[in-house]
Amino acid sequence: MSLFRYELLAQEGEARAGRFHTAHGVIPTPIFAPVGTRATVKAVTPRQLEEIGAALVLANTYHLYLRPGDERIARLGGLHRFMGWSGPILTDSGGFQVFSLAGGKRGESLRSIDDDGVTFRSHIDGSVHRFTPERVMEIEMNLGADIAMVLDECAPPDDYAYNVEALARTHRWAERCKAAHHREDQALFGIVQGGIFPDLRAQSVEFLTALDFPGYAIGGLSVGETKEAMLRTLAFTAPKLPRHKPRYLMGVGTPEDLIEGIARGVDIFDCVLPTRVARNGQALLRTGKLNLRNARFAEDPAPLDERCDCYTCRHFSRAYLRHLVVAKEILGATLLSIHNLHTLLTVVRESREAILQGRFADYRAAFWAARGQAPPMAGL
Amino acid sequence: MSLFRYELLAQEGEARAGRFHTAHGVIPTPIFAPVGTRATVKAVTPRQLEEIGAALVLANTYHLYLRPGDERIARLGGLHRFMGWSGPILTDSGGFQVFSLAGGKRGESLRSIDDDGVTFRSHIDGSVHRFTPERVMEIEMNLGADIAMVLDECAPPDDYAYNVEALARTHRWAERCKAAHHREDQALFGIVQGGIFPDLRAQSVEFLTALDFPGYAIGGLSVGETKEAMLRTLAFTAPKLPRHKPRYLMGVGTPEDLIEGIARGVDIFDCVLPTRVARNGQALLRTGKLNLRNARFAEDPAPLDERCDCYTCRHFSRAYLRHLVVAKEILGATLLSIHNLHTLLTVVRESREAILQGRFADYRAAFWAARGQAPPMAGL
Repeated sequence: MSLFRYELLAQEGEARAGRFHTAHGVIPTPIFAPVGTRATVKAVTPRQLEEIGAALVLANTYHLYLRPGDERIARLGGLHRFMGWSGPILTDSGGFQVFSLAGGKRGESLRSIDDDGVTFRSHIDGSVHRFTPERVMEIEMNLGADIAMVLDECAPPDDYAYNVEALARTHRWAERCKAAHHREDQALFGIVQGGIFPDLRAQSVEFLTALDFPGYAIGGLSVGETKEAMLRTLAFTAPKLPRHKPRYLMGVGTPEDLIEGIARGVDIFDCVLPTRVARNGQALLRTGKLNLRNARFAEDPAPLDERCDCYTCRHFSRAYLRHLVVAKEILGATLLSIHNLHTLLTVVRESREAILQGRFADYRAAFWAARGQAPPMAGL
Repeated sequence: MSLFRYELLAQEGEARAGRFHTAHGVIPTPIFAPVGTRATVKAVTPRQLEEIGAALVLANTYHLYLRPGDERIARLGGLHRFMGWSGPILTDSGGFQVFSLAGGKRGESLRSIDDDGVTFRSHIDGSVHRFTPERVMEIEMNLGADIAMVLDECAPPDDYAYNVEALARTHRWAERCKAAHHREDQALFGIVQGGIFPDLRAQSVEFLTALDFPGYAIGGLSVGETKEAMLRTLAFTAPKLPRHKPRYLMGVGTPEDLIEGIARGVDIFDCVLPTRVARNGQALLRTGKLNLRNARFAEDPAPLDERCDCYTCRHFSRAYLRHLVVAKEILGATLLSIHNLHTLLTVVRESREAILQGRFADYRAAFWAARGQAPPMAGL
């Protein structure tokens, strides 16, 4: 069990710098994990991910269970070998996708939750499937990621009654996942739920930490609540989690959300945003966004970001990237994805260095000053 | 003018190994040029192209003239800087695209050829444009490739009367292109036409070589004639061309066509095929093709080609590539394009080495033996 050791190297306020040890290498934290939904970070090769500095990649259990199938991936040697990524991988539980994607195409409710699990239809072919905590553990063990997540229920963040009910289920499922999980080279993380409600979050932290997971996610955020509510919830939840375990904020991935998550004690982030907006022609900068469809870039010889040293910024102009986006060329998605991921990985790397050197407060202040804004203080 | 020197290093039968010197580097011949229609080889980065061993990239004048515009590319420093490719580039004249693409969507004849040039509609927005030899030279000089092509007319290969008429026009246009062209760092190649007819091809070679171009293309092949007719035409055309000038066969790009083109005296090839079939899930092997949609690859742990040392074959299984193709993931197009281009570049590299060592006949025989077929002898 000591395989999954988290070393807290430095702390400044709630911001933490550390190392999480896994069977496929050490993850420096804070870290951002690019999302490889179907065992590929869209439009980016594993080698490009390495060059960007990715140290953890996420893959989606729901998608891989449906296609090509977790048993097939197991027979092919597991997810690392399958996708050609030898570094650490994290798989979610599939629960979030079941609740968000697998509802049937015409709005029929084709998903039903009961205390034992959830029945749903495939968004690919409409076939009926069932996830229980035990089934999800089996699937995640077949996939063989370094970090697996328990099955949980993500409730609407501001519905108290719903959250009370969902939290009870989430906790029972966490116990069952823990009991069913038996892969020594895989760390199973618990997921704290409870919407935007401090009492429910506190209750969830208490329940889950008693189960002694090697790491904890803060789920149910970035799903419709206000930014302020998200930051407040983070600020009162993260510090309650064990100091010597990593903390993972699911589904968050803008530069500003990373900075603010780090300031409130988060160690790990993931989000489809940087690659999704890349495919729509949007570049993430530390200071904001560029929409390359905008005609003002048509003859702009500058790189996306003068300060950026990613492959894209070292070789290509905004004018060229705009041309690729307008012409719907695949290379546009690739080059923008590389840049956007690089931007987020730079933010976490610089944050980490700043925390290690005790100057994260200055780094954060400078980040917001470059945007001409004051840092959001919610929860601090 | 000595900038564009072709050095013939070795000859075995009609097969030639040489070097073509350009302002952006030396092209070892025989060579295959990946096609970057809109200033990008689809789904592949310039760095990946370098790793594959690409030494010449083609871009399409018709597409770039329409979008983003040749004048814009000139203002941005030319095509090399625009697309981030510092090696040699070749642009076609746009004529072939005008004749094949720009015909209007509902079959209306929206293209009219006269002796002075051709009027056509953009396939993007239907706007009307006109290419004359002088206009095309202006566009290609704006793009600034190392090799530019004259405007020509590609006639149906087996219509004699049509070819007589088209050839007269092609020759007048070649003269006008030569007169209008005045970029010292750009080699303007003539294009031999004449369909499958030996007398017309001979006439075309005679006319064009009198104009003393630094290189010659053999146009109007691989456009519907039989493979045998293509090989015969090549065999009686290529050897008539000047020994100390490069010979370029336009639009040809399967491994077997490269071998047979080389055997008949061709130095340069280009084709969209390797990247186009890649996007449809097809892998080119020296011994044939694999269609990765085929279910038999679903659990195949082998690389596409055990003998191949491309990035794709070193890291990914057929099972994974099939998964990417079935899931319509962009990475599938990228990895298959890398492999397919690498296969063709390996064929030309190995052919070159064989010619330099006087064993191309054996190499060619082994290539066909591995396919269980006899080499096609048409024209030899």
